[in-house]
Amino acid sequence: MINKITVIGVGLIGGSLAKAIKKNNLSKIVFGFGRDSNRLEEAQKANIIDQFSTNLKEAVSDSDIVVIATPVGSFKEILSEIKPFLTDKILITDVGSTKTNIVSIVKQILGEYSNFFVPAHPIAGKEKSGFESSESSLFNNKKVIITPLETNRAESINLIQKMWEGTGADVDFMSPESHDELLGMTSHLPHMLAFSLVNYLISKNPSASIYAAGGFKDFSRIASGDAVMWRDICIQNKNQIIDHIKGYQKTLNSLVDAIENENSDELDLLFTKAKKTRDSWVG
Amino acid sequence: MINKITVIGVGLIGGSLAKAIKKNNLSKIVFGFGRDSNRLEEAQKANIIDQFSTNLKEAVSDSDIVVIATPVGSFKEILSEIKPFLTDKILITDVGSTKTNIVSIVKQILGEYSNFFVPAHPIAGKEKSGFESSESSLFNNKKVIITPLETNRAESINLIQKMWEGTGADVDFMSPESHDELLGMTSHLPHMLAFSLVNYLISKNPSASIYAAGGFKDFSRIASGDAVMWRDICIQNKNQIIDHIKGYQKTLNSLVDAIENENSDELDLLFTKAKKTRDSWVG
Repeated sequence: MINKITVIGVGLIGGSLAKAIKKNNLSKIVFGFGRDSNRLEEAQKANIIDQFSTNLKEAVSDSDIVVIATPVGSFKEILSEIKPFLTDKILITDVGSTKTNIVSIVKQILGEYSNFFVPAHPIAGKEKSGFESSESSLFNNKKVIITPLETNRAESINLIQKMWEGTGADVDFMSPESHDELLGMTSHLPHMLAFSLVNYLISKNPSASIYAAGGFKDFSRIASGDAVMWRDICIQNKNQIIDHIKGYQKTLNSLVDAIENENSDELDLLFTKAKKTRDSWVG
Repeated sequence: MINKITVIGVGLIGGSLAKAIKKNNLSKIVFGFGRDSNRLEEAQKANIIDQFSTNLKEAVSDSDIVVIATPVGSFKEILSEIKPFLTDKILITDVGSTKTNIVSIVKQILGEYSNFFVPAHPIAGKEKSGFESSESSLFNNKKVIITPLETNRAESINLIQKMWEGTGADVDFMSPESHDELLGMTSHLPHMLAFSLVNYLISKNPSASIYAAGGFKDFSRIASGDAVMWRDICIQNKNQIIDHIKGYQKTLNSLVDAIENENSDELDLLFTKAKKTRDSWVG
């Protein structure tokens, strides 16, 4: 059994992972690291972590696995800070929403220790942040994508895979580039659309929301995502996100053309295709 | 008490209204009209309507209120067909998602009888269609917008208001133009975005959906809306919808610029503003 897993950043995802590890007995100790000892103490009282420290050396030393669960923009700083305490007994992983950029930061900062970094991303979340919203079942039946480095050892990858499978997740493997292309489409793009929709409505008529039905609430739910997290994702997955927004705008333009021309058949086709596909995805 | 309310088109909205009328004892008889007698018989067996007919004369005659609950594209035909059976004892109303266009069709087809037509729109719905998905509580605490004609009598408007309030809804009044501008923004635009998102994903990678988290499912839920209904709405509220899509695209372009320039402060601001607003709307 694993003796100590350290979670750096005990927020929604870090907290949910900590809870899932404890619930499924995946490690003797779940150790939390953060900048604010009051928050860490609260997380300990809420039984999310067993121990905590605001001292990175203490947090990282003797860990079997260190999980970085902070916004992706903080990785450079955190990796630089933990590097002095790394050994070849410590495996590092992350939960970041982008992968290509993280892999390049890891190689740049960790050098030879990058062999021990196994990049991962659980496809799970909520519009709320903070460990107060965390759930031990958050990863249950959810996908976790591991994008291994060519220098990762098979047993390292295996250990991270086992950890995630232990939380109930289903692990897939792909390249960092495929991950970023895919997530740019299924997650980053919808978030950009939702943020922009809310901002468009604010600019037009801030009180319009009282006439919005349930569909709008669902649609805009993801616009309540954490601003810092999304800022970082935008910068790290910049090219993919811009490509997807531009591609999406072309699709939107075809729709505008069909409406402009009152092309009933085309509108029927567009909406029927979307409905059928969406129903089959969810069903 | 009202003796007979006739619902033309016993689908999700018509069926839910019929149920709500029966549950709240708003009429002695709820009468259903449709083209398919088998479907109407099923609706009667499901206790959604008391009586039914595929004969419009029978359905409309002796009704106190006739509610048109078919897709807005069918209004011209239906109004022409019911006109011969109208009297000054029969009030007509609708549940259509567009209003300016309907008002002009009503005036054109019904002539002097348009005085008895009180246009209305309940802001409630689901991504499923058909009376099987109907609910007597669908309008509970939901807005219903009435857009009266200048020739409607106060008592006519009052009766339609009472009917909707009897289902638990909260009635507001505005002009057809204000309604279409508002709904173009809070309902039609989000639907266009969701349909286009799904169609964009199909065009890029149809199997991507297995890597989509809950946010995507919520976001795309409204893309499962009824294709014919949305085709009709697009054509009837064409100008507003196109204006809103174009306005939205400008907001989206500002976001692309901020990402392109890696403008952290701007991205922070955009996402924080959206999050705060969305939280305040829902909270």
